[in-house]
Amino acid sequence: MYDGIVQDLIDEFGRLPGIGPKSAQRIAFHILQSPSFDVSRLSTLLGEIRDKVKFCEICGNVTEQERCSICRDPRRNATLICVVEDAKDVAAIERTREFRGLYHVLGGAISPIAGIGPDDLRVTQLMQRLADGTVQEVILATNPNLEGEATATYLSRLLHTLEIRVTRLASGLPVGGDLEYADEVTLGRAFEGRRAL
Amino acid sequence: MYDGIVQDLIDEFGRLPGIGPKSAQRIAFHILQSPSFDVSRLSTLLGEIRDKVKFCEICGNVTEQERCSICRDPRRNATLICVVEDAKDVAAIERTREFRGLYHVLGGAISPIAGIGPDDLRVTQLMQRLADGTVQEVILATNPNLEGEATATYLSRLLHTLEIRVTRLASGLPVGGDLEYADEVTLGRAFEGRRAL
Repeated sequence: MYDGIVQDLIDEFGRLPGIGPKSAQRIAFHILQSPSFDVSRLSTLLGEIRDKVKFCEICGNVTEQERCSICRDPRRNATLICVVEDAKDVAAIERTREFRGLYHVLGGAISPIAGIGPDDLRVTQLMQRLADGTVQEVILATNPNLEGEATATYLSRLLHTLEIRVTRLASGLPVGGDLEYADEVTLGRAFEGRRAL
Repeated sequence: MYDGIVQDLIDEFGRLPGIGPKSAQRIAFHILQSPSFDVSRLSTLLGEIRDKVKFCEICGNVTEQERCSICRDPRRNATLICVVEDAKDVAAIERTREFRGLYHVLGGAISPIAGIGPDDLRVTQLMQRLADGTVQEVILATNPNLEGEATATYLSRLLHTLEIRVTRLASGLPVGGDLEYADEVTLGRAFEGRRAL
């Protein structure tokens, strides 16, 4: 619809997740017309990101060094590993400031439909980390959906051969939510996981 | 929350219109992890857009040449000018394939609150285009909101001194919409603008 580069930029933005054609157009014109937006900075960052950002050789989290800032931090509790699907989950858990152990990023979840099996995930690396006996507990923090539950079940069976405590994040009612609007599976889980007061 | 460049990229995307922190994170990880996304292309386009894209010296539409593809097209009806606020409006009207005349992009609308008066818009350029008598009709296609209406009113008064037909796009019920859910102003306009069948 537009000439040349404007349309090209709209098309490229439209290929990013969650950006439809209208949003892409709005973004392209913002970049074109808003002097306060530092376009060269975004361009430079995009040029660098794939070269500079690596995955931590220990846990698989994003980092610009060999090991991520969490694995490098000696104050973290090395007896506790929280297994997550994605580096985004590490950031989400870090925001809670509840967890002071280490992480292990699987790089996805088991999904027969998508053709993703245990061999496509960082499962071998996890087993290697657990081999020296330092780790006392593995918290399975995969998503509470079909793929995440399947992955947690698979890992818990695998880990039961080792002398390690294996736990799973609690499912239940979201804090601030309304019982009335909770789906039946979540409400069922909240009953199952009820605690004595 | 993330180390270095990943967080920088998330922050930059978060500064674009319509992209919140969660979307920005999702986009940054997509760029990092999806091999199918051509990050160098986006980076190059961003580096070029402000240098290469100009505004048509006649109508103010975006172009990479002195004059935009519409102003250069001899098949367009040069007796008809459609006045819009923004280059995005040109694209929206072009998509309808209803209009075969030329455009004039004002670069905004009169807004006393935002401190935008007629002198901040391309009004003088419009008057210059109308001076040679070629144009027979000016269609005022500013937005049907407070600022757009004020701009249309201002322009129609200004243009009434010339021997040119001045029209305004119809306001009324959106096609496919539901009368029940129309706001009262729109419904009122639909009555005002009713047509004999």
